[in-house]
Amino acid sequence: MKKLSMVDKGFLIGESREQPMHVGGLNLYTLPEGADEQSFLEGLAQNMRDAEALLPPFGDRLKTGRLGTLGNIYWEPDPSMDMDYHIRHSALPKPGRYRELFNLVSRLHGTLLERSRPLWEMHLIEGLQNRQFAVYTKTHHAAIDGARSIHVSRNMLSPDPNHVRTDSPLSLASWEAYKANLREGKKQPYSESELRTVNDIIKSSFGSGVNAINALRELGRAWTDSSSELAVPHLHVPRSPINGKIDGARRFVAQSWSFDRIKRVAAAFDGTFNDAVLAMCSGAMRKYMMLHSELPADSLKAMVPVSLRQESDLDAGNAIAAISADLATDIGDPAARIAAIQASVRAGKDYFRGMSNAEIELYSLAMAFPTLVLLPLGLISRLPPYNLAISNVPGIRQPMYWNGARLDGTYPLSIVTDGMALNITLVTYDKNVDFGIIACRRSMPAMQRLIDYMEDSLQELEDAAGFAVKTPKSGAKPKVVKKKATARKPVAKAKPAPKAKLKPKTKANAKTKRKAATGTATKKTAASKAASSKPKTKPKTKRASVKKAARAKVNRAKPKAVKPKNAN
Amino acid sequence: MKKLSMVDKGFLIGESREQPMHVGGLNLYTLPEGADEQSFLEGLAQNMRDAEALLPPFGDRLKTGRLGTLGNIYWEPDPSMDMDYHIRHSALPKPGRYRELFNLVSRLHGTLLERSRPLWEMHLIEGLQNRQFAVYTKTHHAAIDGARSIHVSRNMLSPDPNHVRTDSPLSLASWEAYKANLREGKKQPYSESELRTVNDIIKSSFGSGVNAINALRELGRAWTDSSSELAVPHLHVPRSPINGKIDGARRFVAQSWSFDRIKRVAAAFDGTFNDAVLAMCSGAMRKYMMLHSELPADSLKAMVPVSLRQESDLDAGNAIAAISADLATDIGDPAARIAAIQASVRAGKDYFRGMSNAEIELYSLAMAFPTLVLLPLGLISRLPPYNLAISNVPGIRQPMYWNGARLDGTYPLSIVTDGMALNITLVTYDKNVDFGIIACRRSMPAMQRLIDYMEDSLQELEDAAGFAVKTPKSGAKPKVVKKKATARKPVAKAKPAPKAKLKPKTKANAKTKRKAATGTATKKTAASKAASSKPKTKPKTKRASVKKAARAKVNRAKPKAVKPKNAN
Repeated sequence: MKKLSMVDKGFLIGESREQPMHVGGLNLYTLPEGADEQSFLEGLAQNMRDAEALLPPFGDRLKTGRLGTLGNIYWEPDPSMDMDYHIRHSALPKPGRYRELFNLVSRLHGTLLERSRPLWEMHLIEGLQNRQFAVYTKTHHAAIDGARSIHVSRNMLSPDPNHVRTDSPLSLASWEAYKANLREGKKQPYSESELRTVNDIIKSSFGSGVNAINALRELGRAWTDSSSELAVPHLHVPRSPINGKIDGARRFVAQSWSFDRIKRVAAAFDGTFNDAVLAMCSGAMRKYMMLHSELPADSLKAMVPVSLRQESDLDAGNAIAAISADLATDIGDPAARIAAIQASVRAGKDYFRGMSNAEIELYSLAMAFPTLVLLPLGLISRLPPYNLAISNVPGIRQPMYWNGARLDGTYPLSIVTDGMALNITLVTYDKNVDFGIIACRRSMPAMQRLIDYMEDSLQELEDAAGFAVKTPKSGAKPKVVKKKATARKPVAKAKPAPKAKLKPKTKANAKTKRKAATGTATKKTAASKAASSKPKTKPKTKRASVKKAARAKVNRAKPKAVKPKNAN
Repeated sequence: MKKLSMVDKGFLIGESREQPMHVGGLNLYTLPEGADEQSFLEGLAQNMRDAEALLPPFGDRLKTGRLGTLGNIYWEPDPSMDMDYHIRHSALPKPGRYRELFNLVSRLHGTLLERSRPLWEMHLIEGLQNRQFAVYTKTHHAAIDGARSIHVSRNMLSPDPNHVRTDSPLSLASWEAYKANLREGKKQPYSESELRTVNDIIKSSFGSGVNAINALRELGRAWTDSSSELAVPHLHVPRSPINGKIDGARRFVAQSWSFDRIKRVAAAFDGTFNDAVLAMCSGAMRKYMMLHSELPADSLKAMVPVSLRQESDLDAGNAIAAISADLATDIGDPAARIAAIQASVRAGKDYFRGMSNAEIELYSLAMAFPTLVLLPLGLISRLPPYNLAISNVPGIRQPMYWNGARLDGTYPLSIVTDGMALNITLVTYDKNVDFGIIACRRSMPAMQRLIDYMEDSLQELEDAAGFAVKTPKSGAKPKVVKKKATARKPVAKAKPAPKAKLKPKTKANAKTKRKAATGTATKKTAASKAASSKPKTKPKTKRASVKKAARAKVNRAKPKAVKPKNAN
């Protein structure tokens, strides 16, 4: 019997109906040509179930003593392992759009796993349009090992569309074969230890008591440091609707963007892929808050794991730190905003430059430590360490197949907690970047619009980079959601149907969208204009000056809180 | 703000992930001729959502103070009532049989409601075969008022197939109209106060601290009483696999039987409808335990709410008590078994004969009280008060419609607890009796076969009553499930696909089934024979002697525990 670590125990102790501690993944596939959906999915399920011995922890359940989760906790084999319980068939109601898929996955992600069984579920979902099907997987964060989970999912997939599995990808035997293959081939871009580091950092960001005393000492050093660009958790983190207490229901949306499109923006501003992603998210959050709640005067801060190696496309590597990135949501101009974000990320990285890997790890734990103290005291919503989390997980950069079914996209569903009701996680896969966005349902009632705002934000960045686009930007129709609804009217009636589309947004289809949207552009309200217009105090920067701005310290006047104006 | 009663608070305090305290209902409908499933269901959902003000508690959420659920708890209106969250569209994977429906409903019933929202969910389920659709409703036992819940469900239905609702059945306005109609018409067979009594009894059986001291005093009297036929909770209640600790997953099956068929058996044995139902369940439990686990030497005892008025078909009335019925599962002969059950029920009722309604209520609470003491001590699985619960809820004895969709059946899903992993609840509707059976998934791995065994049991009673049937009884193929599986093989592989059929089992189709089964009858194993054969110590009773046996005290030799024999 394997004993659980302190970190993993933390996920069990910290869990509640309102704050489940599992992570999820949604994979979208296209059925192989000629395959019948029902029998194909039944075949996949049967293949998964057919394992004589399961790879840990898929066959193990928790074993506690008299002290419950407060005492020692072990993994023990489940004596009556019930694969039908863990591997499930689900279906979407008609018309089977992504909207119905996101609804189902939001619900599935918003319920607790059953603690007396192995802590995972897998849902094969049928009923999607265009011969697609989906697989949603849910695993407890106390059970998952980052490295293992990524490798397990890779073990299911093959670059060969004609490859058909015979053994269960959850079996111990197939796992051993996969590992042997890894050692021989060396084709895998990330080692188990590299991925474990990412996993540990991400885990520790949710609170860990490891090395608590050292961590506190380090934290003190960070707080009193004079580096002005460095964003420190809890310091100048504004309060906002996404930083209160959460409830137990979730909203999930997903969207793919072309990797090249984001990379091109990054290059134009002499930044990393990660900088461009942060700028995209920042613009979307600025717009969301202006239109649906209230934009805080202080900029939003995001918890971001970053690489400390030479600048690379994916920010991956064996020295990874969790930094607090200033999202510069107080800056209207997209070029100035990405410059401020870059400066903040660079300062965060510079801070680690002289440290050993061990020191970096310690520091990252230290940054996460206050969460552990504040969470049980109920103070986390008053002193949020960050406003949201944005993580970038490196994936496979080529098309992959599961028994001939093409993997079209892979979207992560992370954890939201009191004080941090929004999590954006992205995976690079094939030629796309797949974003999975999860939020507390009550804290972000119009959350599904974030994907439209992210597209708008990316287009603004493209405009600022000087990529010639003439037609006006399309925007989701602005809609003011009252912060405190007094009537009993269902919120649902106040919002139009979200547009769910997962097709990667390329420049080509973005242009089409713009043309189509031209007719409605005149309907823009004052609030919408405010969200997209550049502030008057800043000159419109051209591409040449952008790079300069990125390097210079941005002189930021703190604007007053911008309240949304009712359109009528 | 309405304050929660002690009883209702108990359901919140006693709740855990393993032991949710909500009740459910599954209604099956047939689409009106020509109606499109998708638009019809969308119409129903839209109609439900369209309520300006909601009937309490559908728009109310819990409000606790600093002490949480230990302090006072109130209902307060949810300031951001989100009808899309509560009213959901779901679909069944193909081929959309009852098997897929039961799977989905088992899962939905096995997750906790979200406590920061009004404590109910409603799922409109599409994808069934034969133009049927289903509605699963889930309401917390702390929120539901028995009377209200039955009336709310009636308020949705109409005896007129052409009636189409315009107002939401969940609206306060439609509720007021319904109540006014009730007062005028007096057509409803049960008053609100009558139904409230049933509700309170059922609720109190799950543990309540009301009048605890009086209750204890009354209990002492019951335990020392000399009446030998009277079954008292915790006394001679055998331990069995359905009386251990439960986990958080459920199995649900449902089945309808012809009311007349059961009533005919009851009449043959000079018993009530309820006696025949208990005998049917008893035979099924005896067979289940012999084939799948171990039949205890002592007879199983069931918690049964009964009417104390003159014998009536439905055992309904304003004086209702919870009795402990001896299911006589130690007796192989069906006639002798129903006689023993009748004697036990009669003794239970006789005990209440001289009491006032208030005394009866107090006594029923007293019987339930030990549960409250034992549950927190973790002793409930060692000293189960009953082995299972069998409740009979009077329903509407005519066909009903929801916007033209015919209600085909209405199946309850109750609560299972530590120590009582099985609950059988039935509703009389139109010409049928609709059974809803819910169990802990781990405690009863082959639970879905109970519906076949109940049919077998009913046929045995028909044989014993002398209703001429020549062909041998059909039995589900006996299968021995090892109590402690050592291999990692999924349990699913050890059992054949359950036969899910909800069509009422009439004598006519029962005969057909027998004929079809004749060919396989020779495959019976020793274990199967033991389950169906009459014990040698008892003479085969004919119909005339049955009534006599029912009145006489049954001389029961305690048989030794019958262990299932492995078929191979």
